[in-house]
Amino acid sequence: MLGKYVENVREVCPLIQCITNYVTVNDVANAVLACGGSPVMADAIEDAADFAAISSGVYLNIGTLNKESVESMLEAGKSANKSGGIVLLDPVGAGATRFRTETVRKIMQGVNCSVIRGNISEIKAIAAGEGNTRGVDADENDTVTEQNLVKAVNFAKSFAEKNHTVVAITGAIDLVADGKRCFVIRNGKAEMSRITGTGCMLSGIAAAFAAANKENILDSVAAAVLTMGIAGEIGVEKMEVGEGNAMLRTRIIDAIYNMDAECLEGRAKYEIV
Amino acid sequence: MLGKYVENVREVCPLIQCITNYVTVNDVANAVLACGGSPVMADAIEDAADFAAISSGVYLNIGTLNKESVESMLEAGKSANKSGGIVLLDPVGAGATRFRTETVRKIMQGVNCSVIRGNISEIKAIAAGEGNTRGVDADENDTVTEQNLVKAVNFAKSFAEKNHTVVAITGAIDLVADGKRCFVIRNGKAEMSRITGTGCMLSGIAAAFAAANKENILDSVAAAVLTMGIAGEIGVEKMEVGEGNAMLRTRIIDAIYNMDAECLEGRAKYEIV
Amino acid sequence: MLGKYVENVREVCPLIQCITNYVTVNDVANAVLACGGSPVMADAIEDAADFAAISSGVYLNIGTLNKESVESMLEAGKSANKSGGIVLLDPVGAGATRFRTETVRKIMQGVNCSVIRGNISEIKAIAAGEGNTRGVDADENDTVTEQNLVKAVNFAKSFAEKNHTVVAITGAIDLVADGKRCFVIRNGKAEMSRITGTGCMLSGIAAAFAAANKENILDSVAAAVLTMGIAGEIGVEKMEVGEGNAMLRTRIIDAIYNMDAECLEGRAKYEIV
Repeated sequence: MLGKYVENVREVCPLIQCITNYVTVNDVANAVLACGGSPVMADAIEDAADFAAISSGVYLNIGTLNKESVESMLEAGKSANKSGGIVLLDPVGAGATRFRTETVRKIMQGVNCSVIRGNISEIKAIAAGEGNTRGVDADENDTVTEQNLVKAVNFAKSFAEKNHTVVAITGAIDLVADGKRCFVIRNGKAEMSRITGTGCMLSGIAAAFAAANKENILDSVAAAVLTMGIAGEIGVEKMEVGEGNAMLRTRIIDAIYNMDAECLEGRAKYEIV
Repeated sequence: MLGKYVENVREVCPLIQCITNYVTVNDVANAVLACGGSPVMADAIEDAADFAAISSGVYLNIGTLNKESVESMLEAGKSANKSGGIVLLDPVGAGATRFRTETVRKIMQGVNCSVIRGNISEIKAIAAGEGNTRGVDADENDTVTEQNLVKAVNFAKSFAEKNHTVVAITGAIDLVADGKRCFVIRNGKAEMSRITGTGCMLSGIAAAFAAANKENILDSVAAAVLTMGIAGEIGVEKMEVGEGNAMLRTRIIDAIYNMDAECLEGRAKYEIV
Repeated sequence: MLGKYVENVREVCPLIQCITNYVTVNDVANAVLACGGSPVMADAIEDAADFAAISSGVYLNIGTLNKESVESMLEAGKSANKSGGIVLLDPVGAGATRFRTETVRKIMQGVNCSVIRGNISEIKAIAAGEGNTRGVDADENDTVTEQNLVKAVNFAKSFAEKNHTVVAITGAIDLVADGKRCFVIRNGKAEMSRITGTGCMLSGIAAAFAAANKENILDSVAAAVLTMGIAGEIGVEKMEVGEGNAMLRTRIIDAIYNMDAECLEGRAKYEIV
């Protein structure tokens, strides 16, 4: 059922403007291409709004911030809001420093975000206006587990409703929620956290999925999260002796490139609550 | 006959200063190294001209622009013009926004560009002062085909002559022209467009080829375009089940690393018109 | 004996703030993850000091400089000095331009650097206040050889002592010295210089090694240099026909990912003088 969202991306080939960090930007571009989207990585204040206006979606990632890029994000986001493009925000490191938490607040005040994707510490920091993020990784005390799942699902739904958005909280268990429904996803592998950029790449393909499936953003973002989790599983399964995180990165992008409805539906492990 | 240009790059090991976008900069550096050049990626206004003065070639790519990098490009380009280094301009996204089209015009007014490499939409936008570029990809209506080839060749020659440059217009069919001769090249594979940066990498190695073969820039740039097209073919031929654009990227750079005169001359498909 | 330093990194998982160039930043992050560290790549002036204060180590690399990043480096370095984190400086291209040599001097005046890692031309340029660096590669006349080894070792020790630091001078023969002892390391392969970023990656993992082994920085940096050299050897050994520098890059990071005490101690070739 979710498989059609994968296929729609390849059919529509949505143009996605990405204003993202310089650490993982190349992997993000290749991941967006792998899933069938067409990335444009234009972040200059001079043409950020112009590109947003012709894009189906805008992806804002605050991994490496500076004053000018924040302005470009605001311009691009507002432009997308006007022209009907979706906006996905990845609040990297929110809660780790005041500057980041405040930048996220500024973006969320100026731009209607269709989707917000982060780890649990980042999303909690946004909800609270502060946080315990350790660098760019989630704090152990925040982790979503089978034990605190009901509470976490309620938090996700409430966050989504309050912020008029779809929220994707990813970790060992992934939650994708709007105000009413929450996908609880159990795909993925621990090894994915040993690669830089799996979160950034996921946000990039989620933007492409949402842009190609605007009539159902919740389900399409869930399909994107499943795609990344399953790609991670395929990548880890293929690891040979002596291989490590660099080859795993290559295999994950390749698995996104080869993802289809059948593979996604055959391997997806989720429930809707 | 064109094979000697490949070998000259490895012999001369030209120092190439690259001021390029942060999306594909790592692949550009590795591609320049793979073909035998020595890349320096210095873009600060404080030493851009200094590096250009000791380089054999300067590569300017406007993929991710900002005000400071445009100034650095102008300084580096002028410095190379003085010291006798070649300058290659890659006008990424020209025609997509006014900012980009005008930045290209500014660079072309301030700097003598030995080579300009872009897709057909970008080159047409420069010629016209406007354009239909969709993000960073060529517009379908502009595509060079067997049907409009004569017209496209004439356009390329006329563009080169008017701008005192060698122009490389790459796509399904590649054209490399000065005012008198035009290489029509039919190597390469469609899958190359599913990787970010094949154009940027091609421009990087073309700068190295031209810098190592200054007495014949047209032919050496054609050799660079052939090298990239053949590397793409080798990469695609080696793709195994389950592989995608990430492994293809690796294989293409590796094929450049292994390119020699024999391979190039054995696989090259081109005519000169 | 040096193997324990490899294992300590995996046990401690030190948070390493990296302010580094945008060319090789992704490889640096993956290399730090591969050796067991946790990288944060935050370079904004607004939160550079905040991240440094919670990190075990700060890695400063001047590969692509601009005015703001230099300020961030100074803030991060000073913050680490206060909070007890180690600081590693990679003076890329020192000696190639006045701007770079002076930036290094400014950082070294404002920040106590626990470790400085560069090629011989860069370190000589810092010592002399000038230099013959060719782009970012060492000048041939400077190369450390068996013939000039005694002189080079004395230079390394004297540089380390004068600057109250551990210095790692890497090339065909690697030297890692404080004022009293010098590791002379003969691992590594020439092919490593055909990849962009092996030096940057080495500096990144050296920062992680030093941060996880603060009680013995000299030995742990030597272990990091050995790790990179051995990873290079493993990478080259595994190269198949048709492979080149792109696959070699992947294999080197993967070899770091798989490095353990046994592999390091079994393959290490060094003497202490």
